[in-house]
Amino acid sequence: MALAYDGAIQRLIDDFAQLPGIGPKGAQRIAFYILSADQEETRDLAEAIVEVKDKVRFCEICGNVCEISPCPICSDPRRDQSMICVVEEPKDVMSIERTREYRGLYHVLGGAINPMANVAPRDLNIEKLLERLKDDQVKEIILALDPNIEGEATTSYLSRLLSPLGITISRLASGLPVGSDLEYADEITLGRALSGRLTV
Amino acid sequence: MALAYDGAIQRLIDDFAQLPGIGPKGAQRIAFYILSADQEETRDLAEAIVEVKDKVRFCEICGNVCEISPCPICSDPRRDQSMICVVEEPKDVMSIERTREYRGLYHVLGGAINPMANVAPRDLNIEKLLERLKDDQVKEIILALDPNIEGEATTSYLSRLLSPLGITISRLASGLPVGSDLEYADEITLGRALSGRLTV
Repeated sequence: MALAYDGAIQRLIDDFAQLPGIGPKGAQRIAFYILSADQEETRDLAEAIVEVKDKVRFCEICGNVCEISPCPICSDPRRDQSMICVVEEPKDVMSIERTREYRGLYHVLGGAINPMANVAPRDLNIEKLLERLKDDQVKEIILALDPNIEGEATTSYLSRLLSPLGITISRLASGLPVGSDLEYADEITLGRALSGRLTV
Repeated sequence: MALAYDGAIQRLIDDFAQLPGIGPKGAQRIAFYILSADQEETRDLAEAIVEVKDKVRFCEICGNVCEISPCPICSDPRRDQSMICVVEEPKDVMSIERTREYRGLYHVLGGAINPMANVAPRDLNIEKLLERLKDDQVKEIILALDPNIEGEATTSYLSRLLSPLGITISRLASGLPVGSDLEYADEITLGRALSGRLTV
């Protein structure tokens, strides 16, 4: 019985199935797509995979991914140098940039405190954040961590660590997602929306 | 505003988002996975993508994908040479092989008749099928096409084409999927299950 494909196809399917969010059926579909795609497109994909490892580095100031360090945000003089938004991952920077509501700087921790996964404060990019606060230019730190257990733990750790510096420390508001339905909100979210209510 | 990532990462995200079944969020997740994966694993993936185009060809007999033509199934003398199972795509061969119920040969059409997508019988691998039937070795043809409009059209086209040859022509049974619930079966499937009922 031939229960696996012949050589190169099976190897490609196995390699794709190891990527996050791709199962064996999806990997098979992609492999056959690549097989039928034109040479240029597939060579482009293969090059992009190799290139990303060679070219991408971490910004020496904020820890975000970039090709030239300091990153375009850190080296942009038009950004508000008095605010730093602390996030867990580089993709969180992109999410906040897309809101077009924020014009300050960022600091990427590279994760959140998670004792179960052996991530302690010393494993995060916190030391460089403290260095950045030394020159008194920064007036506000926004803690924009994920609203889950690890994010909350990191938020309270950082707010304890930073509060002696006399800088304004804020955090993202919790509450009902825009466009959602009050009926389907979980009680913790609804509780946060109530306690954080705004006068109109 | 930096609404796209810097260079190489964005290129990788865009390339992955073009693959079937991967959206922009999934592509971003994969790109960051590749960025943090070890060099060997990513080089392996890039090589597999290029290699598949170089190494994989179509079997000159059955049209299945393989590295050496004729494919392992066509060149296996232990397979039942009197039966040919006609399928649409190479992945259908794998699906049938996994049942371990079939020991005959295959013929891969490379698609199904679909006037909307401009796929006519001449675009399918049908001529080589007729050639294979010339030496009187084949006693049964199993039409194992997808149970949808295109598959049904191709099944009836092929059964009309092949019936003058005096070979047994069969098709896959339609009916209730094993493990499913009668209550949730659509009426066409349930109708097929009724008309194709078996005495026990």
